[in-house]
Amino acid sequence: MPDDQPLPLLDRLSALLGPRGILTDPADLEPHLADWRLLYRGRTPCVLRPANTAELAEAVKLCAAAGVPLVPQGGNTSMVGGGVPDEGGRQVVVSLARLNRVRDIDPLDMTMTAEAGVVLKAAQDVAAEAGCLFPLSLGAEGTATIGGVLSTNAGGNTTVRYGNARELMLGLEVVLPDGQIWNGLRRLRKDNTGYALRHLFVGAEGTLGFITAAVLRLYARPKESEVALCAMRDEETALALFRRFRDRDETAVRAFEYMSGTGVGFYARLIEGGSVPLSTPAEHYVLVDLASTRPDAGLRPLLEAVLEEALEAGEVLDAAIGESEAQRAAIWRIREEHPEAQKREGASVKNDVSVPVSRTPELIRRASEACRRLIPGVRPVPFGHMGDGNIHMNLQQPEGMDPAAFLARSHDIMETVNEIVRDLGGSFSAEHGIGRLKTDMMEGWRGGPELAVMQRIKRAIDPQGLMNPGKVLP
Amino acid sequence: MPDDQPLPLLDRLSALLGPRGILTDPADLEPHLADWRLLYRGRTPCVLRPANTAELAEAVKLCAAAGVPLVPQGGNTSMVGGGVPDEGGRQVVVSLARLNRVRDIDPLDMTMTAEAGVVLKAAQDVAAEAGCLFPLSLGAEGTATIGGVLSTNAGGNTTVRYGNARELMLGLEVVLPDGQIWNGLRRLRKDNTGYALRHLFVGAEGTLGFITAAVLRLYARPKESEVALCAMRDEETALALFRRFRDRDETAVRAFEYMSGTGVGFYARLIEGGSVPLSTPAEHYVLVDLASTRPDAGLRPLLEAVLEEALEAGEVLDAAIGESEAQRAAIWRIREEHPEAQKREGASVKNDVSVPVSRTPELIRRASEACRRLIPGVRPVPFGHMGDGNIHMNLQQPEGMDPAAFLARSHDIMETVNEIVRDLGGSFSAEHGIGRLKTDMMEGWRGGPELAVMQRIKRAIDPQGLMNPGKVLP
Repeated sequence: MPDDQPLPLLDRLSALLGPRGILTDPADLEPHLADWRLLYRGRTPCVLRPANTAELAEAVKLCAAAGVPLVPQGGNTSMVGGGVPDEGGRQVVVSLARLNRVRDIDPLDMTMTAEAGVVLKAAQDVAAEAGCLFPLSLGAEGTATIGGVLSTNAGGNTTVRYGNARELMLGLEVVLPDGQIWNGLRRLRKDNTGYALRHLFVGAEGTLGFITAAVLRLYARPKESEVALCAMRDEETALALFRRFRDRDETAVRAFEYMSGTGVGFYARLIEGGSVPLSTPAEHYVLVDLASTRPDAGLRPLLEAVLEEALEAGEVLDAAIGESEAQRAAIWRIREEHPEAQKREGASVKNDVSVPVSRTPELIRRASEACRRLIPGVRPVPFGHMGDGNIHMNLQQPEGMDPAAFLARSHDIMETVNEIVRDLGGSFSAEHGIGRLKTDMMEGWRGGPELAVMQRIKRAIDPQGLMNPGKVLP
Repeated sequence: MPDDQPLPLLDRLSALLGPRGILTDPADLEPHLADWRLLYRGRTPCVLRPANTAELAEAVKLCAAAGVPLVPQGGNTSMVGGGVPDEGGRQVVVSLARLNRVRDIDPLDMTMTAEAGVVLKAAQDVAAEAGCLFPLSLGAEGTATIGGVLSTNAGGNTTVRYGNARELMLGLEVVLPDGQIWNGLRRLRKDNTGYALRHLFVGAEGTLGFITAAVLRLYARPKESEVALCAMRDEETALALFRRFRDRDETAVRAFEYMSGTGVGFYARLIEGGSVPLSTPAEHYVLVDLASTRPDAGLRPLLEAVLEEALEAGEVLDAAIGESEAQRAAIWRIREEHPEAQKREGASVKNDVSVPVSRTPELIRRASEACRRLIPGVRPVPFGHMGDGNIHMNLQQPEGMDPAAFLARSHDIMETVNEIVRDLGGSFSAEHGIGRLKTDMMEGWRGGPELAVMQRIKRAIDPQGLMNPGKVLP
């Protein structure tokens, strides 16, 4: 089918999905052509908006029979161009936005069945109304959808305690590339009956089919929490503090975030009301967030005792404990505003990498040094989830350098960081996935038998190659 | 190749593996022909015992080229005949017993890399020596191996707190059916780089390749624990007690086991020294095991407070708290000796089933009633992991009935139980897997698109069908 030829199925799809179920007006297509980072801007003949799983399945059958490639789309918050069509104009976008029901919630079972189009924040709210917690939490939660966070196995701040999206999923409903519906919405903690297909669809970024609904695990709501900001002597003592907390109470650490003095400095200088509750600037900081479902957990004495030990050992240089909800939020804001502060300071190159938790200090130190050698004056701004090994190893342009000239070095910077990541047994994509942006890195990082098996699985499940073409696999 | 013709590869395999690496003497083959339940007794021309992953890979290449089917074997503790050859005499057994090194352990990273042949108990011990906990725990832990518990996604008593074997695994090394080695021994908490192949091999029961080593997650060792035996009013209040504990401290419950009055009665009557620390017999019991990594967790007051509430509410009829390590072990023994007590009481039919946690009371009640209607006088002995929904819904023969006549009704009993399990959204195999015993149930329970996708994956990864033929897939 050559580019821009009208989609021959349009009449049949319109009859199937009705006027609300298909968009063809260019103005209506516009929001579906690019993700929020605007990395790519594609074209599509139409956007399908099925009302339910059965409608989607019928539409997929029609498209499969006609050889029409499909691009599943959730909240368009991909960091790697995972949910947008290419420039060819043939790929049909399928929005799951109308599959937005929470089908059931069971606080005794601690499960919730939510459709793909339910926004993450809405899922959190439904859980909260039932007295439970759906713990997945990330910056884009007001827009990202359940289908999207499962398809990308999203991470976020609380992975150290609750795991990634994968660990919060018990069962799936999937529309396969041939339009068959697999109802795997089981709510079981134990079910050893053949291959774990659900784990194949989670993280497949829509290249093996459409996740249309999922059984999600719920947790109890914490009744007590504490947040502290600590100035640390160096990278090693930052990790040592994590271990001190973990040794004292393995389950209490809800988040353990590292920040550099450079990043905290940007925040203080560039964000309105951006104050830091410690008087002397340091080169290294951590944010500790403790939580417990016990009302009498004694987190405050635990926090104080650990900090005192670490202060005496010279590991913690200074620390501030949030004394109110507002103060705790203000500490979290230092971490959350890092991307915005970086943006205001000029051009930056982002690396979403992970290493074994024990190697995070070495990653931060070695990658910072290597980038400084590569580009004199470059300002490393590493921050992120030290407790799970996922550091956003970002680099800020040297002061006064032309932003475009700096960005022209992006590839060199990424290569420099990734060489160290590889040496430390790490990953080039920790929580953002592959999408379109990183497909050309798959051969170098996952090549050989691993990529070959992935490709065989892709061909086995999607023999026509119609599901989200050009994503994940090279 | 007709039965019993000498394996043409024997000379080449002998040259490759050396005298310790291949067994052909009938007496040496004997222990490898049947699992411990003696469900099936097969034949094999030889048993391969490679010394390391590279040797295994070369042996697999030779066998793949010659079309020789292979049966991976761990500790031979399968409940479903998963690790033994069939009666045809062509299938070559491959024992992973010599791959028995713990390659490394990192208490800061909280990971351990263990080879497939490491016995589960040995892995627990190595973790303990490093001050950590490898929490997977099950009856066969003195014999079962890491390769086996991962290939079957083993569960056990602590799933409610730590998850199944799957959740305790971060990375794998696998020898594929064509003899290629996939090194996926990554120690990462976050790694979103294509399809999650490791989750496909876990639970595949050796039908997709050989798991040769794994990166395992470690936890902190509990510093405080409490165990109580409670006599409960009925099935519903048993589950309600679980909820009371969970609401008070979500992370404290390490195990929550249901037992029937019948099973506890068998224990008291048939096991040497089998005393029950409660004076009045009840129809329903639970064993609660609480643990915390905090030395000051206050588990005892928590336990007493919850039991007092439940006593006042009339839910708990009586309770005994273990006052010493010996008393706690004695309470656990009531649960652990259930299989032995059942054996001494005569013939029984076992069902390893699971339902959503919230439906466990209904499962126990309905399945017991239905079996009593089916066979008047039958004695239901349900017990097991109420906290994760996995009930061993066992049935003891009526008193005085001929055991063989009772066992002749096995199929009817299983059908009766499974009909209720299905109605409650449950699974016909919770933690024991499919093996050879349950392959004929796959079509009825997982048939349609789910089984079709599994079969396509099998063909994609093992196109010759040489890996553990006759297991898992019908």
